Amino acid sequence: MNDLLLRACRGEAVPHTPVWIMRQAGRYLPAYRALRKRYTMLEALRDPDLAAAITLLPLETFDLDAAIVFSDILPPLIGMGLDLTFVPGVGPRLEEPLRTTKGIDRLRVPPAVEAMPETLETIRRVKPILRVPLIGFAGAPFTLASYAIEGGASRTYSRTKALMYSEPAAWDRLLTKLTTVVADLLKEQVKAGADCVQVFDSWAGALGPADYVRFVQPYSRMLIAQLPAPVIHFSTGTGSYLNAVACAGGDVIGVDWRVALDDARKAVKRPVMGNLDPVTLLAPWRELKAHIDDVLQRAEATGHIFNLGHGILPETPVENVRRLVDYVHTATSQA
Amino acid sequence: MNDLLLRACRGEAVPHTPVWIMRQAGRYLPAYRALRKRYTMLEALRDPDLAAAITLLPLETFDLDAAIVFSDILPPLIGMGLDLTFVPGVGPRLEEPLRTTKGIDRLRVPPAVEAMPETLETIRRVKPILRVPLIGFAGAPFTLASYAIEGGASRTYSRTKALMYSEPAAWDRLLTKLTTVVADLLKEQVKAGADCVQVFDSWAGALGPADYVRFVQPYSRMLIAQLPAPVIHFSTGTGSYLNAVACAGGDVIGVDWRVALDDARKAVKRPVMGNLDPVTLLAPWRELKAHIDDVLQRAEATGHIFNLGHGILPETPVENVRRLVDYVHTATSQA
Repeated sequence: MNDLLLRACRGEAVPHTPVWIMRQAGRYLPAYRALRKRYTMLEALRDPDLAAAITLLPLETFDLDAAIVFSDILPPLIGMGLDLTFVPGVGPRLEEPLRTTKGIDRLRVPPAVEAMPETLETIRRVKPILRVPLIGFAGAPFTLASYAIEGGASRTYSRTKALMYSEPAAWDRLLTKLTTVVADLLKEQVKAGADCVQVFDSWAGALGPADYVRFVQPYSRMLIAQLPAPVIHFSTGTGSYLNAVACAGGDVIGVDWRVALDDARKAVKRPVMGNLDPVTLLAPWRELKAHIDDVLQRAEATGHIFNLGHGILPETPVENVRRLVDYVHTATSQA
Repeated sequence: MNDLLLRACRGEAVPHTPVWIMRQAGRYLPAYRALRKRYTMLEALRDPDLAAAITLLPLETFDLDAAIVFSDILPPLIGMGLDLTFVPGVGPRLEEPLRTTKGIDRLRVPPAVEAMPETLETIRRVKPILRVPLIGFAGAPFTLASYAIEGGASRTYSRTKALMYSEPAAWDRLLTKLTTVVADLLKEQVKAGADCVQVFDSWAGALGPADYVRFVQPYSRMLIAQLPAPVIHFSTGTGSYLNAVACAGGDVIGVDWRVALDDARKAVKRPVMGNLDPVTLLAPWRELKAHIDDVLQRAEATGHIFNLGHGILPETPVENVRRLVDYVHTATSQA
């Protein structure tokens, strides 16, 4: 078993820097695109045969140091009583976004075995055949709340912020429910076989540092504190207050490309994951290599998991992913 | 004449902190909405009578310490040969975005008197009747380039980055042309009567720090170095590399709300503008006041221009703007 990812989470010496890629089982892979012509996102992740196959897909193609279970952060909202759909070509949408305190109080708090049983089953199926660590994941309470309230992507997150400013008690009840749901999801994923888990707070960067500390950090901290496996705490747009993110917890802090990795490491004082700009994978090799080298030069030899700063883009050439993975291994090899 | 804005630009003592609001003549004002039902954005800014009236509108309603000429950063692209239109409800769009090096080489470099004569005329008309400083403005070369290449707003700026990575020589020619156009625009605005100018690099935060330094900073520096009036250098999403932004120049660095203002001041070592989250203007006064207080506590008494961290939202209650402006004056009063 290749356990480099877990060693990097602990800041231990590694023979080479482990690498995996956010959305590594995604639309840039022809086999994934072919499957997704036939099945919607929800169908695919709710079918453990399919989800297991998709989880394994990138590992057959690239020399990756981790698998991540094929799933999504949003389906737990369905189990809580919201009407999430994935609109092809648009993304996730809620017909009736969460806009009232009554709506918040009606939300159910389903256990993971009810909310996401297929993801747990997918983990049980792939775990025995993997030779690399398996990452489980879920959305952070804030990011799930903002999806639920906005009903989809947002430029301003104005409804989310308006709720937190106007109805702090309702905000607390909502985030507390989400924290309970997500904590159980991640604990059950670990029980099912996940070796480590990633908490995605993808939209935390919509907030300024003072609001992050007041309205987000307490719930992320409550969540992370109860997780029984190494935690990668990922967010984007939080580069100027990573210390506050780190303060919420996580063995590893995942950062986007808008912050220099050496600055990030200084701010969080622990292992980091990142942080290549996904768009560099569309560039000629000369430029892609220069950007990988920049990340590696700013990283330390231990306590670094190489990854992109956000999900891989659908238009990424497969060949560039192969070169990236192999180059990171070669360039960081201590042998 | 109230010259507090100009004194704050120089870091001098002021009787109270000057305040203005990005998009202060905007959709949150009923009179502006009424006018815009009748005239498109381009019609309004190309009619000096209308543009002057709109410039003055917020000053009649609030006790603001600066006017900003009613105009837009994108129309210069029309003079350069691109087919920009403002699609109602969608925003600016280019039918044929800039995607080839041939397209870049065909771009004209019109002088300001050809590209934006109406904005210069608007400045000449409002200047004599203003009792506060008048701010001129233009888009930074990078932000204009990214609009021209993407053809509209973008989540990833992948075409912009792909061009800079793949065709660095063409990128240099494009940014050099844009720098020339914008420099002349701003110089002519100052000649026409603008007391200071703001350079909007609104999308610079799409880049990581190393790319910013290589592909953006040289052009912004070339631009700012030749401007004959105080410069406010504004960007968003650059909170983790504000030192690099400041290094490109500007008497004042304008920042968004994702960075604590005291951290920003330390990073840029000069006066700062900002940085209230625009969404807080939708909150109850108690919360709005708490957020204003937080900004003021992190600011120093000199070298601070109070503003939002980005443009005011159309759904903002007018009354909250009045309270904000008056409160900043009272709370910072040295009398």
